[in-house]
Amino acid sequence: MRNIKLTIEYDGTNYSGWQIQENGPSIQAELEKALLLITKENCKVAGSGRTDAGVHARGQVASFMTNSRIPEDRFAYAMNSVLPQDIVIKDSREVDSGFHARYSAVGKKYSYILLNSRFPSPLLRHYAYHITYCEKLDIESMRQAAACFIGPHDFYGFMSAGSKVTDTVRTIYDIQIAKEADQVKLVFRGNGFLYNMVRIMTGTLLDAGIGKIQAAAMPGIIASKDRRRAGSTAPAHGLYLDEVYY
Amino acid sequence: MRNIKLTIEYDGTNYSGWQIQENGPSIQAELEKALLLITKENCKVAGSGRTDAGVHARGQVASFMTNSRIPEDRFAYAMNSVLPQDIVIKDSREVDSGFHARYSAVGKKYSYILLNSRFPSPLLRHYAYHITYCEKLDIESMRQAAACFIGPHDFYGFMSAGSKVTDTVRTIYDIQIAKEADQVKLVFRGNGFLYNMVRIMTGTLLDAGIGKIQAAAMPGIIASKDRRRAGSTAPAHGLYLDEVYY
Repeated sequence: MRNIKLTIEYDGTNYSGWQIQENGPSIQAELEKALLLITKENCKVAGSGRTDAGVHARGQVASFMTNSRIPEDRFAYAMNSVLPQDIVIKDSREVDSGFHARYSAVGKKYSYILLNSRFPSPLLRHYAYHITYCEKLDIESMRQAAACFIGPHDFYGFMSAGSKVTDTVRTIYDIQIAKEADQVKLVFRGNGFLYNMVRIMTGTLLDAGIGKIQAAAMPGIIASKDRRRAGSTAPAHGLYLDEVYY
Repeated sequence: MRNIKLTIEYDGTNYSGWQIQENGPSIQAELEKALLLITKENCKVAGSGRTDAGVHARGQVASFMTNSRIPEDRFAYAMNSVLPQDIVIKDSREVDSGFHARYSAVGKKYSYILLNSRFPSPLLRHYAYHITYCEKLDIESMRQAAACFIGPHDFYGFMSAGSKVTDTVRTIYDIQIAKEADQVKLVFRGNGFLYNMVRIMTGTLLDAGIGKIQAAAMPGIIASKDRRRAGSTAPAHGLYLDEVYY
């Protein structure tokens, strides 16, 4: 059988998340429906990881096995012709049989968009988290706090309940925080992220940005492994899975 | 009576346009419904101009007369509390009784967003016009053609049928064209724009960008006042009314 790797962009607004659910539409189910239509096979699509309801992706990666003879780059066009408009395959290629979207991944890049303004934006209502801190939000304090996340740490305290993961050590390579007009964009790169970890890190950096947490306290908060000492979980609709590294 | 000026942002995706229609939701109708709820008056809201179905606004301006005693800046908060999430009042203030959103306007700023990429973007599907010209699109040729629009011209050939306007001379102050990754943003400033004029100028600049029209031919195309010599009307969903000048 052939092993096909897909790179996928999606608008998560109208989905219950990546994973197939009994109730509610999922990205994975839409992809498998599309593959059934074009290959007549019941392909199982493996994603690099789940995304929650409302979370977007610019570069989610998935793979599946097939006997279809469709040329590798044509899967993108064929699938796009039957997928809903809020899911688009940006690239399809045949890969080694040993490749697996989840197990082969060595890192990920996520971004989180904040809109810091007095009023919400209708145009960004599904695409950025609206906060009203305005001048109170100090970007430099956020950067100082973010620096404490860099490197390998046990991020047990930055994980939501409901995950079966036992090894909670992850390495963060890089966090960039950029302000442009009333938007703040946070970009996180690391070898992996626990359940809700980017959203909890974002909530914690917001606490640092308004002075509720001092950068000096960050190492202690991480070391405590106490979910209650980290910030709250920033909402799903500001989060984007940008890239998966292999 | 008091005269109140509103600055409004909206996502035009789910509306039949600015103007009240017999069938289909409109921005104007939503604003009047909101005002009825908060003032108990049947206020007539006058916009700076109509926007078509799917067109967005970051700075549409409207005005209305009222006997309500709500403080001027509180109209924004009160209206936002009852408006749908895709319409937001960004500013409300009391103005001179002579002010009228349409008749007092002395200029407007529009922007148009193009996504020039092999595949469409789910995240921008309602917010940018997807084209697949890729490397064939020459930004410098678009800028040369755009320069021909600057100044006062009779733009009769750049107006869609259905307008009752008789004076079709408009002055374009400035057109900026910027490329960032796979997006091209066009910004138009002028003393006024005819029906569909920005979208027809955009379609014409796209023709210039792919070499279908040469910049040298532009003055003749404008002078011909022949709609068929201009480019096609770019779709509504790439267009934004950014600002109205008074």
